[in-house]
Amino acid sequence: MEQDLLGTSVALAERLRATLGDIVLTGAEMAEYCRDWHGDVQSGAVAVLRPRDTAEVSAGVRACAELGLGIIPQGGRTGLVLGGVPDAPEDQVVLTLERMTRIRQIDADDFSAVIEAGVVLEAFKDEAAKQGLFFPLALGAQGSCQIGGNVSTNAGGVNVLRYGMTRELVLGLEVVLPDGSVFDGLSSLRKDNRGIDLKQLFIGAEGTLGIITAVSVKLLPQPEHVATALLALNSLPDAIELYRRARRQCCDLMSAFEFMPPLAFQLAQEGIPDLQLPIAPEHPAYALVEISGSGLVDIDDLMARFLESAMEDGLVVDGVIAQSQAQAKNIWLIREGMNEGQAKRGKHMRTDISVPLSRLADFVAEAEAAVLAEMPGAVCVSYGHVGDGNVHLNVLPDLSLGEDSVDAQILKSKKLVNAVLDRFNGSISAEHGIGRLKKPDFVERLPETRRQLLLAIKNAVDPLWTMNPGCQIDRT
Amino acid sequence: MEQDLLGTSVALAERLRATLGDIVLTGAEMAEYCRDWHGDVQSGAVAVLRPRDTAEVSAGVRACAELGLGIIPQGGRTGLVLGGVPDAPEDQVVLTLERMTRIRQIDADDFSAVIEAGVVLEAFKDEAAKQGLFFPLALGAQGSCQIGGNVSTNAGGVNVLRYGMTRELVLGLEVVLPDGSVFDGLSSLRKDNRGIDLKQLFIGAEGTLGIITAVSVKLLPQPEHVATALLALNSLPDAIELYRRARRQCCDLMSAFEFMPPLAFQLAQEGIPDLQLPIAPEHPAYALVEISGSGLVDIDDLMARFLESAMEDGLVVDGVIAQSQAQAKNIWLIREGMNEGQAKRGKHMRTDISVPLSRLADFVAEAEAAVLAEMPGAVCVSYGHVGDGNVHLNVLPDLSLGEDSVDAQILKSKKLVNAVLDRFNGSISAEHGIGRLKKPDFVERLPETRRQLLLAIKNAVDPLWTMNPGCQIDRT
Repeated sequence: MEQDLLGTSVALAERLRATLGDIVLTGAEMAEYCRDWHGDVQSGAVAVLRPRDTAEVSAGVRACAELGLGIIPQGGRTGLVLGGVPDAPEDQVVLTLERMTRIRQIDADDFSAVIEAGVVLEAFKDEAAKQGLFFPLALGAQGSCQIGGNVSTNAGGVNVLRYGMTRELVLGLEVVLPDGSVFDGLSSLRKDNRGIDLKQLFIGAEGTLGIITAVSVKLLPQPEHVATALLALNSLPDAIELYRRARRQCCDLMSAFEFMPPLAFQLAQEGIPDLQLPIAPEHPAYALVEISGSGLVDIDDLMARFLESAMEDGLVVDGVIAQSQAQAKNIWLIREGMNEGQAKRGKHMRTDISVPLSRLADFVAEAEAAVLAEMPGAVCVSYGHVGDGNVHLNVLPDLSLGEDSVDAQILKSKKLVNAVLDRFNGSISAEHGIGRLKKPDFVERLPETRRQLLLAIKNAVDPLWTMNPGCQIDRT
Repeated sequence: MEQDLLGTSVALAERLRATLGDIVLTGAEMAEYCRDWHGDVQSGAVAVLRPRDTAEVSAGVRACAELGLGIIPQGGRTGLVLGGVPDAPEDQVVLTLERMTRIRQIDADDFSAVIEAGVVLEAFKDEAAKQGLFFPLALGAQGSCQIGGNVSTNAGGVNVLRYGMTRELVLGLEVVLPDGSVFDGLSSLRKDNRGIDLKQLFIGAEGTLGIITAVSVKLLPQPEHVATALLALNSLPDAIELYRRARRQCCDLMSAFEFMPPLAFQLAQEGIPDLQLPIAPEHPAYALVEISGSGLVDIDDLMARFLESAMEDGLVVDGVIAQSQAQAKNIWLIREGMNEGQAKRGKHMRTDISVPLSRLADFVAEAEAAVLAEMPGAVCVSYGHVGDGNVHLNVLPDLSLGEDSVDAQILKSKKLVNAVLDRFNGSISAEHGIGRLKKPDFVERLPETRRQLLLAIKNAVDPLWTMNPGCQIDRT
């Protein structure tokens, strides 16, 4: 049986190569394209296609459709929900956009740019910065993730509270549709109300409706002044109150507001051993606040006056404002290091949850209590983007219970957290998407009206279900 | 024949009344619901449905579907493209949302609200302001337009450069679908990446895919400080340069940047006879600039320092900063009065165009030259939202040529302007939508791939074409 499948796969791959030439990879070279970011899953594929331009993407899509093969579009492989990893190796082809790396245009006068799907986010941000321009999407994976993947997953990150999700930064798209035709919508218009906005369908669709090959985006003036502070607080509710106050007092100039528990410092030092802590890890809660802007507003003064009044009122009990870019970077390293620290502790339960801001503190309290009541030896780590109601409530299993129980604890803690989440009308995926990993939890909660509408759209745009089959929703 | 139709219509209306009861209007009472904002078109309908809640909308949709009647969803009737006016009186029913006026919730802690489709925009803004909250959508018709219509048309307005179109303010939707089922998506989550974002389809669809019955929206802190200035400039290119500079110098605190020609003052005084002019109408170009914010940023000081440097560099040659709310209101009256002044001059050619910001000045120069070359007696009035690349380039016909030639001049000037617009890859509808009025121009320019995709979506969601038939696109 395995022999047969292999034989079929090889034959299919050869037919693809005959049509598409040297953009087809097979054999051992495919391994890295069939693995997920965490390294938990290693899959396979009939072939990997590496097109260099939109025409080659289109040709690849047509060739796969003819052979009845599913296509898994792939960006920088930093996704966390298996959206870009094949789940039926003998029926699927990976199509990576990694060779489409042209920045087609940066227009400083228009505050816009056109970039291909395979451009790495950080590379684009750097290029824009050379012209005094700023692309505000900012996330941990920005050194690897690609703009096509960012748009396909509607990526979030740390600046959403000010600049919105990726969706709000997109002005236009070029998409290869399931029949190989090209949807050419690379406009840079700010206002364009010519009927239904079709590009919205592809943002967040994780490649299930077509393959995004290029993107037109908004740019902003590069913030010349950034004030970064790490603040000690008495509680998560105080953090939320501080956020509300910051919104009013700092106008729209707050660009990040991250919440962390004291354990974050320990985890960060486990993740990055030589990390310097700028503040004692002895308080119940911490907030990382960033205010930024260019031009005539005195950002440092604004931060100082904001903190002064917050300390007077007891909302902030201790804090440090970065005095240099190096110090600011060091503060952000804590936020990033805590992820690495969690990873070093081994397998754990990760979530990407959102609830209405007004219910965030209650949600965290109830969900953590629910977990600890059933699993007293586990450790809860809740942190995230307070301003968006987006919390990563993770659970580190009790390792003393032995290796075998870890998976059981992960499963159990996920169920406990999701049960609380459902009572709060929250989202099981605030920013990571659905992919294959969250599909069961997604579908289980999908109201019938919405399911029917999703299937109607999918059947209308991709009647053969060629595009990322197995991702988000199944055919039946 | 007319008798027959009338007989059929009356019979159909009676069947609707039998099913739906007292929400059905017929006869002369329908007239106002079948007329457009400008009073150019008076149509008719089988009946007007005035549901009080979502269940009654749903019942109305089912009843119409059974009788094979098209439904024209209707808001505050301030649309400018005939999107809410029946075009087949014997086959269509108007469904007005005007009785669904409940503000279901304003949550100050969550910076969000849930409101029904028939709530008048200004009434909602006022209610939010009572809690120190701000809903940034702002347009001339805000005293009449309704939130459901705003979302269905993805309304724009004067604050788009800072807060985005209506789409960017929407967190969730409740929609009655063509089969009468209810899409219940009234979430207030800021981040929710659970697959394809279906609500986006209905925003800007002008009721062609379903009827929006309620909306969940973002709110912001009410700006406590607003600085408004009217500035005299040497040219439109200088206005664009000033806008770019304001973006950099005033961070994200600029909330409006409107461009006006000197003729605006004359038109405004024709529209509002006792209007006081705060500045002499003798310069080639004018900009209305608004900076706003709350809390710790000194908005007045920011405006003063911004203008100081702009005047030093000769970008601004004269100007006045409002010293009171009354003065600020007076400045805005010029912007609004010029519309009334144009209307008083009689029929004229109106446009709602957008081009990339970097090409705005060139576009206006070329389009005005094209019109004046062929129609030397006509008057061009170009004004609009510079920051969005959105210009209303209107043409007032040469009245000395006689009444009969006015329509011909309007038609001709539209063709001349659109020909230039096509060369600039602009949009024929920046913010007003397509409706029935712009359908021919829209369809004529629609690429085939896009047309096929639009039809596939429409057929998937509304297979019987019950929803606003005749709007945006035709079945064949």
